[in-house]
Amino acid sequence: MARPTPLSGYPELLPAARAVEREVISSLSHTFELHGFANIETRVAEPLDRLAKGGEIDKEIYVLRRLQAAGDPESEGDTGGDGSSDRRLGLHFDLTVPFARYVLEHAGSLEFPFRRYQIQPCWRGERPQEGRYRQFTQADIDIVGKDELPFHHDVEVMRVMVQALDALPLPPLSFQVNNRKLIQGFYQGLGIPDVTAAIRQIDKLDKLPEDAVAELLVRHAGASDDQARRCLELATIRVSDRSLLERVRSLGVDDDLLDRGLDELMSVLDGCADVVGERVSVEANLRIARGLDYYTGTVVEIYMQGYERLKAVGGGGRYDALADDGRTTYPGVGISFGLSRTLVPLLSEGVLRGSRAVPSAVLVALADEESRPTSDRVAAALRARDISCEVVASPQKYGRQIRYAERRGIPFVWFPATEPGGSDQVKDIRSGDQVDADAASWVPPDDDARATIVVSASSTDERQTQ
Amino acid sequence: MARPTPLSGYPELLPAARAVEREVISSLSHTFELHGFANIETRVAEPLDRLAKGGEIDKEIYVLRRLQAAGDPESEGDTGGDGSSDRRLGLHFDLTVPFARYVLEHAGSLEFPFRRYQIQPCWRGERPQEGRYRQFTQADIDIVGKDELPFHHDVEVMRVMVQALDALPLPPLSFQVNNRKLIQGFYQGLGIPDVTAAIRQIDKLDKLPEDAVAELLVRHAGASDDQARRCLELATIRVSDRSLLERVRSLGVDDDLLDRGLDELMSVLDGCADVVGERVSVEANLRIARGLDYYTGTVVEIYMQGYERLKAVGGGGRYDALADDGRTTYPGVGISFGLSRTLVPLLSEGVLRGSRAVPSAVLVALADEESRPTSDRVAAALRARDISCEVVASPQKYGRQIRYAERRGIPFVWFPATEPGGSDQVKDIRSGDQVDADAASWVPPDDDARATIVVSASSTDERQTQ
Repeated sequence: MARPTPLSGYPELLPAARAVEREVISSLSHTFELHGFANIETRVAEPLDRLAKGGEIDKEIYVLRRLQAAGDPESEGDTGGDGSSDRRLGLHFDLTVPFARYVLEHAGSLEFPFRRYQIQPCWRGERPQEGRYRQFTQADIDIVGKDELPFHHDVEVMRVMVQALDALPLPPLSFQVNNRKLIQGFYQGLGIPDVTAAIRQIDKLDKLPEDAVAELLVRHAGASDDQARRCLELATIRVSDRSLLERVRSLGVDDDLLDRGLDELMSVLDGCADVVGERVSVEANLRIARGLDYYTGTVVEIYMQGYERLKAVGGGGRYDALADDGRTTYPGVGISFGLSRTLVPLLSEGVLRGSRAVPSAVLVALADEESRPTSDRVAAALRARDISCEVVASPQKYGRQIRYAERRGIPFVWFPATEPGGSDQVKDIRSGDQVDADAASWVPPDDDARATIVVSASSTDERQTQ
Repeated sequence: MARPTPLSGYPELLPAARAVEREVISSLSHTFELHGFANIETRVAEPLDRLAKGGEIDKEIYVLRRLQAAGDPESEGDTGGDGSSDRRLGLHFDLTVPFARYVLEHAGSLEFPFRRYQIQPCWRGERPQEGRYRQFTQADIDIVGKDELPFHHDVEVMRVMVQALDALPLPPLSFQVNNRKLIQGFYQGLGIPDVTAAIRQIDKLDKLPEDAVAELLVRHAGASDDQARRCLELATIRVSDRSLLERVRSLGVDDDLLDRGLDELMSVLDGCADVVGERVSVEANLRIARGLDYYTGTVVEIYMQGYERLKAVGGGGRYDALADDGRTTYPGVGISFGLSRTLVPLLSEGVLRGSRAVPSAVLVALADEESRPTSDRVAAALRARDISCEVVASPQKYGRQIRYAERRGIPFVWFPATEPGGSDQVKDIRSGDQVDADAASWVPPDDDARATIVVSASSTDERQTQ
């Protein structure tokens, strides 16, 4: 078997980096659960007709097919087991489509409003680049109602995600919030002929200069030059306080939907005021439109300071019909956070790293192979008090056993007593301190109990000088 | 969008059942980490030439292919991005093949012996039935050495898995252990012409009667009738104590390899003696061969009492060459546990269930919509002390708010004081007890703090009478 080479777009973490990812997932899960969000996982495959909607994403979908069906065009794509082509399956490319299907399929067994979080990989066959992978993990929270979902859940979802991300050792994050009602009402009040087209053009402001977007507004949305100018004036408003109201009003557009959208946006900003901190800020950015058609109110994108090149690392909003089975409509509000998009670059740059590659806090040394039962007993005594440890593989010289611990990042080496009546000793291999210790009572310092996330303060500078 | 129907072979758990799965995964992870096993995840896709080895499993492999490539035979299966057909990818069907690849690919960055655990879904396009799914989760532990791996790791892996499973609320499990050296040495010493063929035939004892297997031994392994009889005598030995030695010796076969295998098997039994308990037993079962060619010493299969119809719910063993890159060989020993195979039937029968469908221990009631900030403050105070809670969605009558909690299985409803100077109250909705409480100090009983696993003692009987 030849030495395998990495597969482009499928990042794989070494154990210490995986420990970081696990800590992050554990922290996110903890915050979500504190707020009553239940975890679910959906199967990775969905019928193709639910995934492929004729949009840009379609060509990135991975289709599943059994190997035995490969030479047989009749059975091509028969993965559902019933031989009919409408059961062709593809891997999900986000967690929203499978969640919507889950809600519809299991609606009779769920209680609404239904709060769920979901942390799973997704797959897109796009060209791999930094922050964009073919397999990537997302962390989503959503609240879904049956027929109705009060607005206060928009604020709730935003607050929960702000707190969840504020608990992580990431570079500063900015939640940039807008409201589709606000944009739509403003365009209506302004008298733009094609409001939907206008929203689509404004969404291009992150790629095109303002003049170019103004031209597109005139050409595709039927706006006059003055209307286009005022659309751009609205889109360039970016504030985090109540001056938002005044700034929008000063543009002189009057519309009921605009007022409702403005109200909702202010409520989101006000509602998050007590949870934002040094790491996470929330501001109104009126150029955020989120191209996707299903958003109907609150919209948000999340950016990471110093990593604007990754584009948004998260986003979401309110959709009045997450799912609909013809009789019942399920409105929802949710935010998705790009775990791989964020962590893989931070790990590869060394901004974050795991404190060690193994869970073990202690390596139990071995005097000779005959005394393995003694070392095993020490290990069992430590584990009985929840201390992770391992016994060294072979009874090399103690110096080599200490290096065995060093290479794995294990902070303590335990030496069982070699004479009757003697005392065990434990060595902190970083300081070299070695003291008498009893496996029935010794505890490592809190920071050493498990692998933790180490944040390199200077790594941003290091990166810039490379 | 029509109401979706379940997809055969892709079991999906409702939130309370998923809470059970999460508790099980958390418990397994905890035991594995206490013993120094590091967690890894591998990408779900492997190049087809690593997955497909010409065996029975091949036809169950799911091949990945981009949707856009569907109509284009030239690019069929181009999922690696470089357009060459040798990069065709398939979903892994177990965690051993991807782990072997991971070890080879990252060998330069790993420390050996390398202990890892891995809990991930796998995919097989087989015909779905109870315990056999197209997407299923496995929990694997392995220890891998570089060029060598001392035998004591066989004992270690077995002890760790015994302890990990003993911590779970499952029906009694039996580890049935054998040793390939023992079988091979016995057949050699007996003078069977084709030892490998004999092992393959003996492996059929779980499907065929003894007479039929005896015939196959004669026909395919060149055994005499007497040799076949003695092979069967060996295969029917099943003991959990040191009488094993005597029983095997009494068959009168003398062989060095047999002795080594017998020694190893006895060491595994002896080594597990202090960790077996009421829930998990370990015994020698000399008919266990594990058909797979790569096992070279210890082999084990795990069976669940009352669920023998599921066949083995786990298994593994020692392989002298888990991976090999031409210069270095990586021997390993590991055990795989079938999480879905075990849990999905137990959950669907109601033997196990989650205590509730939400993480919330408390539902904070709402006097009216205006007092939402008051209820939010109570929730924040509880969360600050790690108590999961949620505020009710709308200010219905208190009776309806209590039913809102009941339907979700939330044990406590919190009523914020409605008058200045009044006291908050908390109601245990199971007992009906309602007492004054302070959100800054109240704590729920330990058992109510989080969703737990409820074991139904009578469910086995219920099942049998259905």
